[in-house]
Amino acid sequence: MVSVTFRVGGSDVVMHANEGDNLLQAAQRANVAIDAPCSGNGACGKCKVKLLSGALDSPQTRHISDEEYAQGWRLSCVSKVISDVVVEVPDIASAYRSRMKVADISSPRELEIFNNTRAEIEAAGIAFVNNLSAVRVQLDEPSTDDTMPDNERLAWKLTEITGIDRVVITFAALRKLALVLRESNFDVKCVIETTDVVTVLDVLPGADETPVAGLVVDLGTTSVAALLVNMENGEILAKASTGNGQIRYGADVINRIIESSREGGSARLQRAVIDESLKPLIQEMCRAAKISSKNVYRMTLAGNTTMNHLLLGLYSEPVRMEPYIPTFFHADDIRISALHLGLHPEAKLILAPNIGSYVGGDITAGAFASMLWNKEELALFIDLGTNGELVFGNNEFLMSCACSAGPAFEGGDISCGMRATDGAIDSMTIDKETMEPSYTTIGNTEHPIGICGSGIIDIIAELFRCGIINGKGKFSREGRRILHDENGMGSYVIAFAEDTGAVKDVSINEVDIDNFIRAKGAIFSATMTMLGSMGMDPSVLEHVYVAGGIGSGINMKNAVTIGMLPDISLEHFSYIGNSSLSGAYAMLTSSQSREKVDELARSMTYLELSTEPGYMDSFVAACFLPHTDSNLFPSVEIS
Amino acid sequence: MVSVTFRVGGSDVVMHANEGDNLLQAAQRANVAIDAPCSGNGACGKCKVKLLSGALDSPQTRHISDEEYAQGWRLSCVSKVISDVVVEVPDIASAYRSRMKVADISSPRELEIFNNTRAEIEAAGIAFVNNLSAVRVQLDEPSTDDTMPDNERLAWKLTEITGIDRVVITFAALRKLALVLRESNFDVKCVIETTDVVTVLDVLPGADETPVAGLVVDLGTTSVAALLVNMENGEILAKASTGNGQIRYGADVINRIIESSREGGSARLQRAVIDESLKPLIQEMCRAAKISSKNVYRMTLAGNTTMNHLLLGLYSEPVRMEPYIPTFFHADDIRISALHLGLHPEAKLILAPNIGSYVGGDITAGAFASMLWNKEELALFIDLGTNGELVFGNNEFLMSCACSAGPAFEGGDISCGMRATDGAIDSMTIDKETMEPSYTTIGNTEHPIGICGSGIIDIIAELFRCGIINGKGKFSREGRRILHDENGMGSYVIAFAEDTGAVKDVSINEVDIDNFIRAKGAIFSATMTMLGSMGMDPSVLEHVYVAGGIGSGINMKNAVTIGMLPDISLEHFSYIGNSSLSGAYAMLTSSQSREKVDELARSMTYLELSTEPGYMDSFVAACFLPHTDSNLFPSVEIS
Repeated sequence: MVSVTFRVGGSDVVMHANEGDNLLQAAQRANVAIDAPCSGNGACGKCKVKLLSGALDSPQTRHISDEEYAQGWRLSCVSKVISDVVVEVPDIASAYRSRMKVADISSPRELEIFNNTRAEIEAAGIAFVNNLSAVRVQLDEPSTDDTMPDNERLAWKLTEITGIDRVVITFAALRKLALVLRESNFDVKCVIETTDVVTVLDVLPGADETPVAGLVVDLGTTSVAALLVNMENGEILAKASTGNGQIRYGADVINRIIESSREGGSARLQRAVIDESLKPLIQEMCRAAKISSKNVYRMTLAGNTTMNHLLLGLYSEPVRMEPYIPTFFHADDIRISALHLGLHPEAKLILAPNIGSYVGGDITAGAFASMLWNKEELALFIDLGTNGELVFGNNEFLMSCACSAGPAFEGGDISCGMRATDGAIDSMTIDKETMEPSYTTIGNTEHPIGICGSGIIDIIAELFRCGIINGKGKFSREGRRILHDENGMGSYVIAFAEDTGAVKDVSINEVDIDNFIRAKGAIFSATMTMLGSMGMDPSVLEHVYVAGGIGSGINMKNAVTIGMLPDISLEHFSYIGNSSLSGAYAMLTSSQSREKVDELARSMTYLELSTEPGYMDSFVAACFLPHTDSNLFPSVEIS
Repeated sequence: MVSVTFRVGGSDVVMHANEGDNLLQAAQRANVAIDAPCSGNGACGKCKVKLLSGALDSPQTRHISDEEYAQGWRLSCVSKVISDVVVEVPDIASAYRSRMKVADISSPRELEIFNNTRAEIEAAGIAFVNNLSAVRVQLDEPSTDDTMPDNERLAWKLTEITGIDRVVITFAALRKLALVLRESNFDVKCVIETTDVVTVLDVLPGADETPVAGLVVDLGTTSVAALLVNMENGEILAKASTGNGQIRYGADVINRIIESSREGGSARLQRAVIDESLKPLIQEMCRAAKISSKNVYRMTLAGNTTMNHLLLGLYSEPVRMEPYIPTFFHADDIRISALHLGLHPEAKLILAPNIGSYVGGDITAGAFASMLWNKEELALFIDLGTNGELVFGNNEFLMSCACSAGPAFEGGDISCGMRATDGAIDSMTIDKETMEPSYTTIGNTEHPIGICGSGIIDIIAELFRCGIINGKGKFSREGRRILHDENGMGSYVIAFAEDTGAVKDVSINEVDIDNFIRAKGAIFSATMTMLGSMGMDPSVLEHVYVAGGIGSGINMKNAVTIGMLPDISLEHFSYIGNSSLSGAYAMLTSSQSREKVDELARSMTYLELSTEPGYMDSFVAACFLPHTDSNLFPSVEIS
């Protein structure tokens, strides 16, 4: 046995490993977060750590320069532990643990968007009324002449109040019934669910004023956002967001499924998202709202098909392998108790329905919140996540598809890419003449440490606008910020290490640009293919709704400039925030919304792009700035 | 801290306690079984232990003679630990842990009675058919042209097979579905419950031959009997019985409820019966039947109202306190998972319904099995347990009542009393002339160590028949076996210590006889009061069905002689074995039986004896051998 010390931030995590153990896997066992978007196969180069003492059996890969190797940088996924070691896990790798700038509703702007969505749903005639409520009940006290047992006494009264004959008292309520009745002089508050049956979930003292709470979760591949809600009036009691704890097992759904299929992997991924993401979120919100998590009686969750499957601990290989068969589209009424989230034991989990292996509940909930199903105008809804998902249609039809954008929007596959956390460049302009940049960083940090998705869009758009790169993404101007390596690969330096005191420059190179062009090409060609399958083109689009975590900082004009979004008038673009979260909120607080989402899921058609003729050609044609067919982007000036 | 060593049988249990801790409570914490029928209030004198070394702060009580005190005998419930001690827990106290001679169906005679009961139920037109079954299903394998998710694929097929539209796949089944389907080429065996909905409880490989098992439990205050059953054909796969682990917290329901109301008591009593009685029984039976406890999909349980409440961990004080209100009569469909019995997670627990605080599911199940509801003849059903419960009626009406017989039938409140375990005298005759006894012991042990219920009936009947005691239970003859103490209290020695090598004689004294006379008086006066409430007397009885653990060895003639059972022709008595167990078996394997038990419970009236005028007078009159009104017992010769 050897000892492995991971230095993370200011603190050390020490664990014991066998000689020959893989360093990344050791970190995962010790719950040390090292970013491994490619799931540890040496492809992405993100899992770099710095060896401070001891020895690792670790080859120098293409991701590590001679200078870096000399400084001690190693790729943890290809490193074997051969002695006691101390390694430093750099900030960029553990960054996802810090505050994620996800599109939750913590900013005034996001809250405004959220409230607008809710108002629009209500305007469509959908009531924000649900079937969970609290009923205060005063029972007659039993006597020798009135010896009905407690459960029948309560059931009779509830029938009298509700007019519903059948009353079911759940086991959780039954367990407390006798004591609560007697401690509160038979004056109690029942938490009930009303269908054709009244189900009593809980019994509390009559004077109890704790809200009947519900939980809304947007479970993304990368980030998780949640709301704690008062079920009786829809009020938001607390909100929070965090990263998805599964991320260290892979950045995208494919790598997560592969990991889940390894021995014990399914439980590992389930526990990662529950213990590291959902439970801390729930505890944080309950603390803020001063309630117990046992007062949460229902949970709605919008997640993609894979997230849904991994959350429930299901065998997920068939989702990833042809013919791509999920275990379920609809799986309502799952008892929370099986997930050990600490909520009320009779709480139910309602998942926004999936409609395919790659179009999940995040999209059915999001498409509902986009309201495109309620308008005559033809509109497109795009959710920009690790997978790009699209819905096209109006009040007469809806069609969906999904494309693999890869992790580039979240900073993966980009040498200085990072997620949208503190220190990331999130917007930038370039002076066309001097080629000098000016940028902003998340958290307004003094120096940038990397570039997040919206920053990359801006940089590429600006490099292209300034004629610094050409349509293929290759450098075509020279200057002090433009470097070329020994193989002739160009790069543009946004911040020099000597100016910021960092170990390396923050820059973007031709490989990065190429990776990003593929991501935007996937989104654009999906748009074109879906429209084309109906004999249409972007000119039919009367509106484009852009949603997702990346959307918040996105510059629509730049996104058009690089050929990611179709070239329609900018006022037809709306950023609609985290539509999965808004949709899941509506499903929680409004029974009609829930029915509507189910109805949309049933009626929405799904276009499998991989089997669609012409998709690959369309993709190749879109891998150019803005596009090989510049007629598609008349508004973009080609310099 | 001091160390406390309990020497039990050959082995030591060592635990740590604070100075001043109560010894009985310390034993309970260490899971050492010391018999404490009175729940540790110093009343019964059963919790004697022998101090081998160290010191206890322990007064000498009336239960301990000078000689015993000098030998180190102490009453554990009044002893405080004041130093490191070693105490011996005598066999008689831990006897209940050994094989209990309960009326399960392990003997050929009991099995015959059980089979007769089943045949009688079937003869009444009740089918042994239930709604749990296994269905083998071959699904089409999915393809790119047939991408229905697994759960819908299975649901469609089950609808096709059963003709029932709605199919619910439980979470336990959903979790396994994808893997089991693919590991068995889409040829699976579903365990389903069929109502107006098909509920899939489990999915197994098609070739799996494990039986779909169910569990039957008779949960008595003193003993627990169980059967493991094949749900598809009713076959008994295994049988077992044991003591109720709650017994160390009190011999009767009142003392158990008192204990359950103490801090943490409810969980303590729940765990005692689950961890010490039910789980070991289940494991033993599953091992014998070579199945996993996860293959048990349903459980029926017949227990009295208090046992039902304590099993579920309910607050039970209101059951014991006027106006005697239970939490429930009916509480079907309790998910087993809340009890952590290790059965299938979607299994349900079906309790035979209670009809009052003192007439519970043991009686509704038992009355069903007695079949008196199916005959024109007026009959009486008596379940002789710690509580005596009676049902009177025929196919037109049923009336029930309960009386507190106390622990005397099980050997409590009797100085040499013990439960029906090895070494107990279970039958006896006395030579009228010589007054010498001849007896049998359970397990045919060389020497008797005490007397169990059926033995006490015989001894009292024989003492009375031989004129050794009079109608008041006082000694009226002299002889070498008849002793008197300093206060003049008489006793009869069945086995002298010097003959058996034991520490004390096995004898019965006037206080014991008086206690037993009260117990039999309670049963007889309950019979008379219930009949009297309808203007009837025992002459109307065309049959008396005697059930219960004690019944197996009972001598009906002697029971009449002492005035416990009414004086009707002996051929009208039937011993019907453990009717609670037979009734619960029928409820498990036959849906019609379950409906019938529910119907009986709803229609059965309940007579509360404590508020019935004349009951107390009737009781006092019955506290005599055979009765103060000897006209009621014309067949009994009064010598």
